[in-house]
Amino acid sequence: MNTVTLPKVVIIGGGFAGLNAAQRLAKLSVEVTVLDRKNHHTFQPLLYQVATAGLSPGEIAAPIRGILKNNDRMRVLMGEVVGFDLERKLVELREGTDISYDYLILAAGATHSYFGHDEWAPLAPGLKTLEDATEIRRRILLAFELAERRASITGKAEPVHFVIVGGGPTGVELAGTLAEITRNTIASDFDWINPRDTRILLIEGAPRVLPHYPEDLSHSAEHQLRKLGVEIIENTMVTSIEPGLVKVGEQVFPSTVTLWAAGVAASPLGKALGVGVDKPGRVIVNPDLSVPGHPEVFVIGDLASFADQKSGQPLPGLAPVAIQQGRHVAKNISHDLRKEKREDFHYNDKGTLATIGRAAAVADLGKKLHFSGFPAWFLWLFVHLMYLVGFRNRLLVLIEWAWSYLTYQRSARLITGSNQLPGWAQQQTLHETSEPSVEHEKKSEAAD
Amino acid sequence: MNTVTLPKVVIIGGGFAGLNAAQRLAKLSVEVTVLDRKNHHTFQPLLYQVATAGLSPGEIAAPIRGILKNNDRMRVLMGEVVGFDLERKLVELREGTDISYDYLILAAGATHSYFGHDEWAPLAPGLKTLEDATEIRRRILLAFELAERRASITGKAEPVHFVIVGGGPTGVELAGTLAEITRNTIASDFDWINPRDTRILLIEGAPRVLPHYPEDLSHSAEHQLRKLGVEIIENTMVTSIEPGLVKVGEQVFPSTVTLWAAGVAASPLGKALGVGVDKPGRVIVNPDLSVPGHPEVFVIGDLASFADQKSGQPLPGLAPVAIQQGRHVAKNISHDLRKEKREDFHYNDKGTLATIGRAAAVADLGKKLHFSGFPAWFLWLFVHLMYLVGFRNRLLVLIEWAWSYLTYQRSARLITGSNQLPGWAQQQTLHETSEPSVEHEKKSEAAD
Repeated sequence: MNTVTLPKVVIIGGGFAGLNAAQRLAKLSVEVTVLDRKNHHTFQPLLYQVATAGLSPGEIAAPIRGILKNNDRMRVLMGEVVGFDLERKLVELREGTDISYDYLILAAGATHSYFGHDEWAPLAPGLKTLEDATEIRRRILLAFELAERRASITGKAEPVHFVIVGGGPTGVELAGTLAEITRNTIASDFDWINPRDTRILLIEGAPRVLPHYPEDLSHSAEHQLRKLGVEIIENTMVTSIEPGLVKVGEQVFPSTVTLWAAGVAASPLGKALGVGVDKPGRVIVNPDLSVPGHPEVFVIGDLASFADQKSGQPLPGLAPVAIQQGRHVAKNISHDLRKEKREDFHYNDKGTLATIGRAAAVADLGKKLHFSGFPAWFLWLFVHLMYLVGFRNRLLVLIEWAWSYLTYQRSARLITGSNQLPGWAQQQTLHETSEPSVEHEKKSEAAD
Repeated sequence: MNTVTLPKVVIIGGGFAGLNAAQRLAKLSVEVTVLDRKNHHTFQPLLYQVATAGLSPGEIAAPIRGILKNNDRMRVLMGEVVGFDLERKLVELREGTDISYDYLILAAGATHSYFGHDEWAPLAPGLKTLEDATEIRRRILLAFELAERRASITGKAEPVHFVIVGGGPTGVELAGTLAEITRNTIASDFDWINPRDTRILLIEGAPRVLPHYPEDLSHSAEHQLRKLGVEIIENTMVTSIEPGLVKVGEQVFPSTVTLWAAGVAASPLGKALGVGVDKPGRVIVNPDLSVPGHPEVFVIGDLASFADQKSGQPLPGLAPVAIQQGRHVAKNISHDLRKEKREDFHYNDKGTLATIGRAAAVADLGKKLHFSGFPAWFLWLFVHLMYLVGFRNRLLVLIEWAWSYLTYQRSARLITGSNQLPGWAQQQTLHETSEPSVEHEKKSEAAD
C-alpha cells in the first residue's frame, strides 16, 4: 500500500498553515501525514460570528479529512502530540505511539493567555475553538433570558452588562456585533427588559483600540464603536475578574458576561521542540522557516517567530502569514528534493482588515490606502467569503449574511448546554434583590 | 403595560403542541405566557439529521422568542416548571416564583425511557434534544477517527460496530443514514480502515421494525435497510448494555457506539398535575383535551393520553397530533370566551412517513395508499421542508439536502467536546490488542 521509498512529511496542525503546506506537498513525491487534535479545520476569522449567533459551527468548519482527500500519499490522523525526539526524528503521541518523519512541519498555533491568571479562564472565556464560540454564544443569549426572568419576578428591569477585555480585532468584532444585536436583532424581543439598555464595555491596555493598526484607523474604529453605543476604556489593565464583576484598580464594573480577547500564547508544543523560543513562546525560525540546527524541522503560522525583514518585528499571527508560510515550506521541501538551494521567506503583506459590525469596518491596504465604514466592510466580507474553505460553506454563509443584513436577524440563536451563568447568583446578591425566592438557583443541566 | 382584565393563559412547552396553541391564541383577547426550559423550539423530526452530520443544529431550531414575536399579550420566559397548585391556579417554577393562570396548557412532551435501566443512559444516548444530537454525532464521527488511529498503530483494521436499540422511526432513520454514510460519504476518507466494513445492527423488540406501521411497509422498510447493509434482529430485547458491547441473553455483540431509540416516557410534569396518568405516564384527557375535574387545565401533545375514537388506542406521539391538539385547545378557549360549547378533539390522520435513507422511505397514507422507495422519500422531504419553522431555515435545509444528494457529502462533520468514547479502552481490552501502548487513553478535553 505504501511507496516506502518516499520521504515522509509529518504536519502537526490543520489550521491555515498546516492545510496550505499539505495542499502544496500533495503535488510532490512525498508521503504526508497531517495530525490534529480536532477532526476539523476551523475558519478562525469568523469564529466571532458563531459566538454572536450569526453563523452555525458547521458553516465555518470542515473536516480536515474532507478537505485533503486521503490517498496513499496523504493521510490524516486525529491525535494529540505530546513531544518530540528530534535526534531520532520522532513525533510522540499521547495515544502511545511514535510517528517517524523525514520532514516535520509544526503548525500548532496559539491559545489564550490570561497573563498568569488562569483562574480567570472559566469566568472570561476566550475565542479560539468552536467549543469556545458556542460557550460564548450560550452566555450571551442566556444573559438576556435570565435578566428577563428576573425582571418578571422583581418587576424591575436591570440592564445586562458585557465587559470585553482586549481591544484587538477580536475584541472590536465582539463589541461591535454585541452592540448591533442589542440595538437591533433582539431589541424588541423581550417584555420586561429592554436590550437597548445593555452596557457594552471594551477595555484595552494600549492607548488605543486595534493598537497594531495605523493610528487613523484606530480612531475610526473607536468612533464607529462609540456610535454603536460601546463604551471604551483605553490605557487600562484589568486587575481582577470575579463572578459578576471586573475590577480595574479601585474601579468595579458589574459584568453579566465577561469575554477575554486580550492575551495570546503560543502552543506549548513550541517549547517542547527544545529550541529557542521568544517571550510569548513562539519558536524563533531561520529565514527559510526551519529551526536552528534542524533543517528538516519547520515551524510556521502563529507558532513561529519570524523576524520581518523590513520592521525587524516578528510577523503578526494572521491567516495570510500562515497561508504564505505553509506554501513556502512546501516550496523549500521541493527545492531539497531537487537538490536546489532553499529560499528565504518573504511576507507579502496585502493589508489587514477588521470588522466592527453591520457595514462598519476598517481596512489598511498599505501606507496611503486606509479606509473605513461601508467600503471596508464590503471588502472584508468579500475577502472572507473567498477564503472560506469549500464551495458549499461559501454559499450558505453568503445566504446567512444576506439574510442578516436585510432582516437584522441572526440565525443561530441557540442556548445549548447548561442554563447557568457564572456569577449569576452573586450578581443577584450584589444588587441586593429583596425577593428571597430568587436565591435558589437552577441546577445546571449537564449536557455534553 | 398589561391589560389586567384579559384571561391569562400559561403554556408549558415550546414544542409543536405549545407553539401551535400560542399562535392561535395570539388572535384572541387573552394574555399568553409560554414557558420552556430551552430558549429554542427544536424541529424533532429532523434531529436524526443533526445526529448524523447532515444538518447543523441552527438549521432545525429557532428561538421561541423569535417565532412568537413578543408583545403585550404574548410573552416567552425561559424557566423550569417544578409543580402545580391546581386549586390556587399556580405554576411553580424552580427559580422560586409562581405564575398564576386562568387557563393552563401543559405540553411538556416526552423523554427517553431506559425501562428501569437508567445506568444505560451514558452508554447509549437517545435522541430528543440538540444536545443529544451533537453528542451522538460526536460519538459516530469519533468512532472512525479512533479506529483509524488504532489501525495506524496496530496495522490491523478492525471494523466499527454500531448497535441501535429500537426499530421505530428514529431507529430506522439512524440505521439507514449510518449505512449511507459508511457506504458512501466517508467510504474512501480513511487509509487504514475501510468504513464499508462497518457493522450496523438494529435490534427491535417487536416481531418487525416500524411496528406501528402497516405490515407491508414494515417489510418494505426491512428490505430497504438490508439492501443498505443493515443487520436486523427482531423479536429480541436487549438484556444488558455495557461499555463496548450489548448483550441479548447469552449473545454478546461488540458495539463501538450504542444508540438508544427504544423507550419513550412522558415528562414527569404529567404526574405532577396529580390527575390520572396511563402506564407511560401520559395524562388521560377528556374528549375536549382538558383534564378531569379541571376544565381550565389542558394537556396536549406527547404528554397527553387521548383515546382515538376509532381504535380506542391512545394517539401516537407524532407532530401532526401535537399540532392539531394545540390548535384545538385554542379553539376551545375561544368557545369559552364566547360562552359557546366546547368541541371534542378529532385527529385528522393524513398518514405517516418514515425515511430510511437517500431516496428510501415508506409512506402510509391510509388503508390502500402505501408506498415506499423514492416517491415516499420525496414526499417525506417535501412535507418536512414545508413544516420547518421559518423561511430562512427552509431555504438552507433545501440547499443542504440538494448538496448531500448530489455529492453524497454531509456538511456538519464536526467532533466537538471530548475526544473519548465510553468503552473505548474496554473494547481494546476485549479484543486483546497486544500493543501495550494503546492502554493509556486520551484525557477528555472538557468542553461544555
